[in-house]
Amino acid sequence: MRSLHDISGVTTFALVGRFNTVRRNLFPMANRDIVIDPGAFVDRGDLARRTEQTVLENSNVTETLEAASSPLVFISSNRSWSDEYLAGLSQRDWVTTTGAGYDAFPLDQFRERDVRFTNQPGNNAPQVAEHAIAMLLSITRRLFQFRTQQQHREWKRISEGMTHHSGDVCCVVGLGHIGEAIAKRLGAFGMTVRGVKRSASNYSGNADSVYPPTSLHDALSEAGVVMLSVPLTDETHHMIGKSELDQTRSDAVIVNVGRGPVLETEAIVAAIEDRSVRAACLDVTDPEPLPSDSPLWTYENIFITAHSASRSDKRTGQFLDEFLPAFERWCTSDQLEHRIV
Amino acid sequence: MRSLHDISGVTTFALVGRFNTVRRNLFPMANRDIVIDPGAFVDRGDLARRTEQTVLENSNVTETLEAASSPLVFISSNRSWSDEYLAGLSQRDWVTTTGAGYDAFPLDQFRERDVRFTNQPGNNAPQVAEHAIAMLLSITRRLFQFRTQQQHREWKRISEGMTHHSGDVCCVVGLGHIGEAIAKRLGAFGMTVRGVKRSASNYSGNADSVYPPTSLHDALSEAGVVMLSVPLTDETHHMIGKSELDQTRSDAVIVNVGRGPVLETEAIVAAIEDRSVRAACLDVTDPEPLPSDSPLWTYENIFITAHSASRSDKRTGQFLDEFLPAFERWCTSDQLEHRIV
Repeated sequence: MRSLHDISGVTTFALVGRFNTVRRNLFPMANRDIVIDPGAFVDRGDLARRTEQTVLENSNVTETLEAASSPLVFISSNRSWSDEYLAGLSQRDWVTTTGAGYDAFPLDQFRERDVRFTNQPGNNAPQVAEHAIAMLLSITRRLFQFRTQQQHREWKRISEGMTHHSGDVCCVVGLGHIGEAIAKRLGAFGMTVRGVKRSASNYSGNADSVYPPTSLHDALSEAGVVMLSVPLTDETHHMIGKSELDQTRSDAVIVNVGRGPVLETEAIVAAIEDRSVRAACLDVTDPEPLPSDSPLWTYENIFITAHSASRSDKRTGQFLDEFLPAFERWCTSDQLEHRIV
Repeated sequence: MRSLHDISGVTTFALVGRFNTVRRNLFPMANRDIVIDPGAFVDRGDLARRTEQTVLENSNVTETLEAASSPLVFISSNRSWSDEYLAGLSQRDWVTTTGAGYDAFPLDQFRERDVRFTNQPGNNAPQVAEHAIAMLLSITRRLFQFRTQQQHREWKRISEGMTHHSGDVCCVVGLGHIGEAIAKRLGAFGMTVRGVKRSASNYSGNADSVYPPTSLHDALSEAGVVMLSVPLTDETHHMIGKSELDQTRSDAVIVNVGRGPVLETEAIVAAIEDRSVRAACLDVTDPEPLPSDSPLWTYENIFITAHSASRSDKRTGQFLDEFLPAFERWCTSDQLEHRIV
């Protein structure tokens, strides 16, 4: 790969179009290129300010990857990644996604090419946890009914269906950064938090107790709240179906902020229909986008938020808070945290 | 006052109608009567089970108070109390309200008659805190917009206006049981929590720092969230007006779960109009019920929940959990906690 030109001592890329890239000169001995996927939520202005670099634009991702000197870091996202970009990547390049999920990335091909891949598991955790709890409470505090009353200028106290979670059991399926952030918050709500985690031994997190996936039914038993925060893998595909939903309390609220296919759509619709659960709050669905003829749209007790749990105006700053020290470590010692490949 | 009759060794009241009362025989030496206001949320069945008493009915509160032997305990509520009941109360009688607020009770007349009065300050705290946070998150996670999209079967990710609170400052005005419950939960959300409390010295609660009411402006300075959880007194009436709202961040969300007149209606409407705050979530308003011609109903960024924050299907159980040991202490040692008069 050819190196890009330097202008008056400051390393910049003279590129045009909708594609952003920056070269960082804070670690002159490293002198590594940063390439940004235009679909990734990264604040170019903030990156420029914090790296003291000019951020310029380009229109073609693969071309820019090819033009940057290797090893480069490519900041992409699960939503915007395209396998076309593979052609621009070579040995020792580092691809990072701005979020926790990474099912859109071709991990096998990264392995074949000796491309490193990391996610940012903690990056979106605070807002996803807040979103999950917001969805939960919208049901149990009956917010939509109050909003409808407000639209009719109707002052009517509501008792039916109003409950609270203090003293109840929550099962958090998946104790990554998002699951831990949920567990911490619901613990402060006075809930007993059970977690489900692949490596359940030697656990020291925010859940009160941890169950391995083989004990999933026990973990769900009599739960009043179920939070799904697992990535999509062969093991988690349809992990929650009829027999799992049968374990919970009949007034349980199921919240999915992981990936849609973790929860079997037919099973949750049936559970809502026969009232073996109270409600389902789905930030993620199977498939996405959810087709307009899906039955999920139509239930009063299903709430859909179109895969927006990680959205926040603070998000780009969060990414940079994590990324800049990680970039420094990579430049100086070639070490990568949160490495998937 | 005359004593009521006993039936076959179990002390009960043979009364009819919508009024409930029970006599407790667990502390035979005390043998005190419990009278329940029909408007108070007390689970009569649970009370009967837990006191091993039959609970019978009566239609006239004052008559029943007069008929019960003194000292009696009268369980009432801020919402259902009537000054007519005073005629049935006499020296050493104990009136308790099932909730935290007590502005409807005639404290001066209780003092004159040597009637004791307590509230249940912690009783509703968990659900009120959950409700306050539910209202807050409904704004910052844009739940009503998602719900509207769902009604149109529209899968559209929302970024605009989506934020989260981790790392921000919250000011909790009033650190009673409800304020503390809010502070605990928002602390776990990663917020820095400032509290405002009359006696700010020697504080050891859930807030990170405490300000006396004279430093209210400092406590509100640059706050992203303001939680109002003070009772209504001469000091708290219109405590939050224009100059206080001017202290907060312009994207602040103001949540009132205390009492309506704590927040000046004109000031909050003006602040919403000129965008010096983002939103107001009002469980309580001034006046209540809110008249249908009030401007508060009509703003997108005002959310009204008709004084329902303390509603929960677990509420009557919560009251009894607190009341039964308190009753036992009163019977055996004449001691009352949370005494207001």
